[in-house]
Amino acid sequence: MTEQIPDIVISRLPVYLRELTRLAEEEGKVNTSSHELGQRLGISSAQIRKDLSHFGEFGKQGTGYHIGYLIDQLREILHLTQEWQVALVGAGYLGHALAHYQGFEHRGFHIAWVFDNDPAKINEEIDGLIVRDVADMDEVLAESGVKMAILVVPASAAQAITDQLVAAGVCAILSYAPIHLKVPAGVHVSYSDPVVQLQRMTFYL
Amino acid sequence: MTEQIPDIVISRLPVYLRELTRLAEEEGKVNTSSHELGQRLGISSAQIRKDLSHFGEFGKQGTGYHIGYLIDQLREILHLTQEWQVALVGAGYLGHALAHYQGFEHRGFHIAWVFDNDPAKINEEIDGLIVRDVADMDEVLAESGVKMAILVVPASAAQAITDQLVAAGVCAILSYAPIHLKVPAGVHVSYSDPVVQLQRMTFYL
Repeated sequence: MTEQIPDIVISRLPVYLRELTRLAEEEGKVNTSSHELGQRLGISSAQIRKDLSHFGEFGKQGTGYHIGYLIDQLREILHLTQEWQVALVGAGYLGHALAHYQGFEHRGFHIAWVFDNDPAKINEEIDGLIVRDVADMDEVLAESGVKMAILVVPASAAQAITDQLVAAGVCAILSYAPIHLKVPAGVHVSYSDPVVQLQRMTFYL
Repeated sequence: MTEQIPDIVISRLPVYLRELTRLAEEEGKVNTSSHELGQRLGISSAQIRKDLSHFGEFGKQGTGYHIGYLIDQLREILHLTQEWQVALVGAGYLGHALAHYQGFEHRGFHIAWVFDNDPAKINEEIDGLIVRDVADMDEVLAESGVKMAILVVPASAAQAITDQLVAAGVCAILSYAPIHLKVPAGVHVSYSDPVVQLQRMTFYL
């Protein structure tokens, strides 16, 4: 693929995929249109057609999109035809919630390891996963070849753990720590901070 | 304020505020520059100066920004000089994690109510908060005048709860439910879906 596709376009594809899956699995629909999808997502139909046009021709004038086909195509584009193994670092309240979360399976991800440094948590079982000592993390991750991690540690520990993850070969991190992480080029970080999200809304209140 | 400030600019202000607070409270710094702030956040100094220029002149050529002053200004711009009361709907694993999260206080928010519909959870205490019956939510919220809510319910329940929240006067919702919510104009929704965030990264792997 020679064309450089804007990040903002990529960021919408998982939302399209999620809504298409809902249409197919929960509503039993077979076809949809950019108009219907746009209405459901609060996005203009022109935007959806433009976003998808970066990757090919998925719809037909008049009949719209075949949902199953478009789902398959989006899963290929987003590299979700394989299941990604994910390491979860941090077994506090939020780490527990993520380890228990049923929404990863069937959407391309499987939490395969949980690490913590708290002796009270090490060897604890969470939903079939045994919490491992973070001291063993380098070795476990290097052997596993894992590429993705979810970081649920205090801000004060987040950069050091990130450095360890990157050294072990992780190149995509979803971080819940309320701090900006420094990573080398080629490593992707996505952030989730509920306070930042709330503060973005209070501006408008 | 007559100028329409782009959403993307607003979305960066909480990140600036978070990093400035870190500089002041954890590193004891008094002054900073757009260059230093940009380096720490992986954002260009020109971008930071341009973002802040929408709101006034906060720095001085040569000496940069007085951190305490800029923090105060950002808190005013983002309407964080008051503490916002927040209703949390859903007391599952993630709801528990959010109810326990210490990061809301001192950053402008206080979870004041927790609701659930599960008899096993109603009346449970989470960190000093008693889980209330969601059947009482309309009344409690209308009396309280609360404007903000965090939604941690299954996708299947999210729209109905959203409609209730909006009817009770809530106009800003942070939703962890993996579904797009329909809300009337003037109501703000921010989404957090770990799978969407992970899928945005697998494209690049």
